[in-house]
Amino acid sequence: MSIDQYIEKGKQLVETELSTVLQTTSIPKDLYESMKYSLFAGGKRLRPILLFASYHPFQPNHVNKVLKTAIALEMIHTYSLIHDDLPAMDDDDYRRGKMTNHRKFDEATAILAGDALLTYSFELIANDEQLTEKEKVFIIKELAIASGPEGMVAGQILDIEGEKKVLTLEQLEKVHELKTGKLISFAISAGAYLGEATDEQQHHLKKFAYYLGLIFQVQDDILDVIGDPEKLGKPVGSDAENTKSTYPNLLGLEGAKKQLADYTEKAIKALHDAQIRHSYLEQLLHYFGERDH
Amino acid sequence: MSIDQYIEKGKQLVETELSTVLQTTSIPKDLYESMKYSLFAGGKRLRPILLFASYHPFQPNHVNKVLKTAIALEMIHTYSLIHDDLPAMDDDDYRRGKMTNHRKFDEATAILAGDALLTYSFELIANDEQLTEKEKVFIIKELAIASGPEGMVAGQILDIEGEKKVLTLEQLEKVHELKTGKLISFAISAGAYLGEATDEQQHHLKKFAYYLGLIFQVQDDILDVIGDPEKLGKPVGSDAENTKSTYPNLLGLEGAKKQLADYTEKAIKALHDAQIRHSYLEQLLHYFGERDH
Repeated sequence: MSIDQYIEKGKQLVETELSTVLQTTSIPKDLYESMKYSLFAGGKRLRPILLFASYHPFQPNHVNKVLKTAIALEMIHTYSLIHDDLPAMDDDDYRRGKMTNHRKFDEATAILAGDALLTYSFELIANDEQLTEKEKVFIIKELAIASGPEGMVAGQILDIEGEKKVLTLEQLEKVHELKTGKLISFAISAGAYLGEATDEQQHHLKKFAYYLGLIFQVQDDILDVIGDPEKLGKPVGSDAENTKSTYPNLLGLEGAKKQLADYTEKAIKALHDAQIRHSYLEQLLHYFGERDH
Repeated sequence: MSIDQYIEKGKQLVETELSTVLQTTSIPKDLYESMKYSLFAGGKRLRPILLFASYHPFQPNHVNKVLKTAIALEMIHTYSLIHDDLPAMDDDDYRRGKMTNHRKFDEATAILAGDALLTYSFELIANDEQLTEKEKVFIIKELAIASGPEGMVAGQILDIEGEKKVLTLEQLEKVHELKTGKLISFAISAGAYLGEATDEQQHHLKKFAYYLGLIFQVQDDILDVIGDPEKLGKPVGSDAENTKSTYPNLLGLEGAKKQLADYTEKAIKALHDAQIRHSYLEQLLHYFGERDH
């Protein structure tokens, strides 16, 4: 299967499962519509696909086992976008060319839809018939750590505070590691753990995930300088305008590209150290590192 | 031990454990301060105390087993207050005589503190060394169901929608059952389950919890009419002004008091059907049913 086909198949798995999961609930109508709107607002399903790809080298034929975990992860990611877009936070009207949740519905509904998705993700895992009790507890713990006050939420508050000053490269990496890196690391760790990778493999994959998270961020920052607004579904150049700390602002465009190449090399080395070769993970690294939106 | 002593001891247990739990984390300072502020903003610790009292008849000498669950429950309750108070929701400046979280800090921090407390509560249970894996999964599942889009969050959105129209008594009870009843039911169920109550006892205790939740709400509504603003720490009469659906508005003050007596009788019958007599649960029922703040 080509990497394009693999990504497309992953997206379909996620979207089918999301639809199935939502069908069986008795959520009040407005809340339900709001949750569903953001879950199907054109996401790339990157985190679930990374989870599938991390699981694949160990268990190539049993993706069902990680489906609910992947969905829960996508729900957490979606909740974080809804809350990030709120007027009190980034105050965004559009995301991926569609109205943000609070613009489509209202602020109260958007806050509650976020809360609901966050809470529901843990219910999903606790109810997952594919996992043993031990696996459920491990996944819930890791997901909560990755997304909570020492993980993604910490990154969000540091990001808000960081917008008021110029960060060093080290501080910038810390923000990204928490804000986007932790969930990406969860995707990789959960896939490897549920696939029963050895401890040593899991150790190397953690390193891989760390660089992968940074790669996404450098690439995002570079696209904000040289990207095509049509393809991105949002205006470009906004980072430079508001003197935000970004890789191109700190290192220059060429410096940022060099950084990207350096992280990519380190990520691939970690993957090979984990004895994983010719993998979808490696292909995804190149695919997303060279993306134009 | 008198019921006053029992409540005081419960409060101290909760507050000591909350302090201990928060000491060991590496949460960014502003986020940490905001979480801590609301966790220690004068809450009555009602839900944890109910959990202790529900556990007590079965395991009178081993409260440590339910401490983390009680703390997690209090964190979920606290997050819900922070988000409910936001400008986009109830827009409250004060709670229990103290500034609400978004007034003390800012809106972004309040949203994130709520998200953080919600997420951290699941991490706490997943990490609880007192529980077996099976118990952790049960507690996480029940807590997520009680607080999620078919539980507390559903109640919150129905409450917001209900403010725009006059509700029937049946609709009003549905809102309360979801918005406040579900977490109270969780407190009772979790205590009974972890105390190893029989299935039949758990069944009767569910009924008890249902009426208990309604009792709190009727009492809240009555206090809004006849309460002392000094003791309540908030102005009274606001429900009548904005023609909100409340028990006194729907049934008259005497009707509401009669309803309270009826629920109390049913709650006690359920408790006795569960073979629980001379319990702190029964004393708490009277204590809170006759409270003046």
